[in-house]
Amino acid sequence: GQNLLVANLINIRYLSGFTGSNGYLIITPRHQELLTDFRYWEQAEEEAPDWTLIKANQNLIAELTFRVKKNRIKTLVLEADTVTIAQERLLKTRLPNVRMKPSMGIVEQLRMIKDAKEIEKVKKACSVADKALEEVSAMIKPGLREKDVANIILQAIRNAGGEKESFDPIVASGPLGARPHALASERRLKTGESVVVDFGAKVEGYCSDMTRTFHIGRPSNRFIKLYDIVLQAQQESIKAIKPGISCREIDTVARRIIGQAGYGNQFGHNLGHGVGLAVHEAPSFAPGNETRLAPGMILSVEPGIYIEEWGGIRIEDLIVVTEGGCEVLTQTDRTPRQLG
Amino acid sequence: GQNLLVANLINIRYLSGFTGSNGYLIITPRHQELLTDFRYWEQAEEEAPDWTLIKANQNLIAELTFRVKKNRIKTLVLEADTVTIAQERLLKTRLPNVRMKPSMGIVEQLRMIKDAKEIEKVKKACSVADKALEEVSAMIKPGLREKDVANIILQAIRNAGGEKESFDPIVASGPLGARPHALASERRLKTGESVVVDFGAKVEGYCSDMTRTFHIGRPSNRFIKLYDIVLQAQQESIKAIKPGISCREIDTVARRIIGQAGYGNQFGHNLGHGVGLAVHEAPSFAPGNETRLAPGMILSVEPGIYIEEWGGIRIEDLIVVTEGGCEVLTQTDRTPRQLG
Repeated sequence: GQNLLVANLINIRYLSGFTGSNGYLIITPRHQELLTDFRYWEQAEEEAPDWTLIKANQNLIAELTFRVKKNRIKTLVLEADTVTIAQERLLKTRLPNVRMKPSMGIVEQLRMIKDAKEIEKVKKACSVADKALEEVSAMIKPGLREKDVANIILQAIRNAGGEKESFDPIVASGPLGARPHALASERRLKTGESVVVDFGAKVEGYCSDMTRTFHIGRPSNRFIKLYDIVLQAQQESIKAIKPGISCREIDTVARRIIGQAGYGNQFGHNLGHGVGLAVHEAPSFAPGNETRLAPGMILSVEPGIYIEEWGGIRIEDLIVVTEGGCEVLTQTDRTPRQLG
Repeated sequence: GQNLLVANLINIRYLSGFTGSNGYLIITPRHQELLTDFRYWEQAEEEAPDWTLIKANQNLIAELTFRVKKNRIKTLVLEADTVTIAQERLLKTRLPNVRMKPSMGIVEQLRMIKDAKEIEKVKKACSVADKALEEVSAMIKPGLREKDVANIILQAIRNAGGEKESFDPIVASGPLGARPHALASERRLKTGESVVVDFGAKVEGYCSDMTRTFHIGRPSNRFIKLYDIVLQAQQESIKAIKPGISCREIDTVARRIIGQAGYGNQFGHNLGHGVGLAVHEAPSFAPGNETRLAPGMILSVEPGIYIEEWGGIRIEDLIVVTEGGCEVLTQTDRTPRQLG
């Protein structure tokens, strides 16, 4: 049997239920131990009842080395994508007789496939976002700053029963829409411009992620033309999703449609990413990603077109892969909408 | 001259001004280059005008290896406390002829001493928190859930001009106050109980951090007694702060007072931590920390007493070390207050 040290906090939550910000899991064929410091002892007992709680100092390393010795561990698998060079060195110094075996994505592989309870939580997070966006879109009008819209979103997420946002909302109006990760600035919404609104909610730790692009006032012909290309790219990609097909192939569907319309260079990012306890996780709908889809995977599908100095259009929904294809989890209307 | 690869996003912001979520800095005696992907090119030009912008794919590694070769770098210093085992391996594979030199806390050492502009930003973040807490404390009353109070705090931070919270607010009432990192639950505030409120605001990326412990209804004798011990421990520690004294010595001042009062085992955490672009950064007021204080360091001073099943008391303020001692940056009243 393998002995695994889990240091990534999201992996710790996934495996044990513990949500504190300082901890390690030690998993061996005979033990499953959760180390944390006194700030979290009561919480750990409640959240992770199946785990042996090891009470440690705030700096966990002394207790960690003690447990590894006590459990007579000879080889310890480390999360290569979480453990830093400094942490590995410290472990090697403290445990000179233990072989350290860095390994990639062990827990992340498990996290890719969501079980029924996890899917339920993501669905709730999507439904919170749908409700919130309904509230927000009724309030969007010219003159508001992007930041005001972001604040309305944060409050609407909580009004709709969400724990919190899954990331800082993106509200990108007019030319700023050409920046896919623009957050929200002091810029004021103007009639005759588009606004990209990208946000998500958390429910019991699970995330949603959704984007809609609105037009303030009557949409221009250019807006409608580009919007239709992006929407078609999104809908055709979603239709192609089913178990067994690779992530790369789905990415290609959208990339081909946008490319054939003449905007291949204006779509620069991946088509989508996994969503779960983290808002970005494996797998991704990306050009090089050969991961085969399987039931229970949850991903975003979010093609976009970004024109410098003009703005951007992105439409994003979450899907869960099913036996027969996929189910779309975010429900907000996708027809081009005029607000304000 | 050294060649440094900066991968830590906060260090990248500190050195260059760039606030995006994907980037690297390459610093050599002759070059200072910022690598990022197309989502951030416009933003990088605005935020980091003194840096040579290197336009890369979303996966930055190919461009990174190209730049290291092009700049004829033979030895590359890595941030040992940020770079993961997996990243180090990838760099070694891609750059077999470059010597990788992991090193601890290079930029973090610089970040410890704040200049006048940084101090100004932290002061603003403290003033936002003071204003927000004034608004919040007027609204705290029995029957509210801890989560409601947390939501009021988030809105009040924004009303007072803050960018966002510097961490999820802690609102811990009654027995939950015994958990120093309790966040905010569904529990309702009750008359006759205390409530620990710990939160911070961000202004231009810089954080504040402050805790007050209130009593709902008339305080009990026990509350007043414990409160006085914590306040005395805090005030005496603050009086002892001056350039040249070690962080450990300041921690000892508070630990001795709480210990002599008989609650040494009920104060389990460090006395404080550095605050800047990160809400927790070096140095810490901690038992083993021999860092000597110097003008421009900003730290929290936050002793506490935590009694299982009863609750907790913590009082936290930010100070900046000055030539003659220190200045307290958070202003909210510290006398024991009855609310609701």
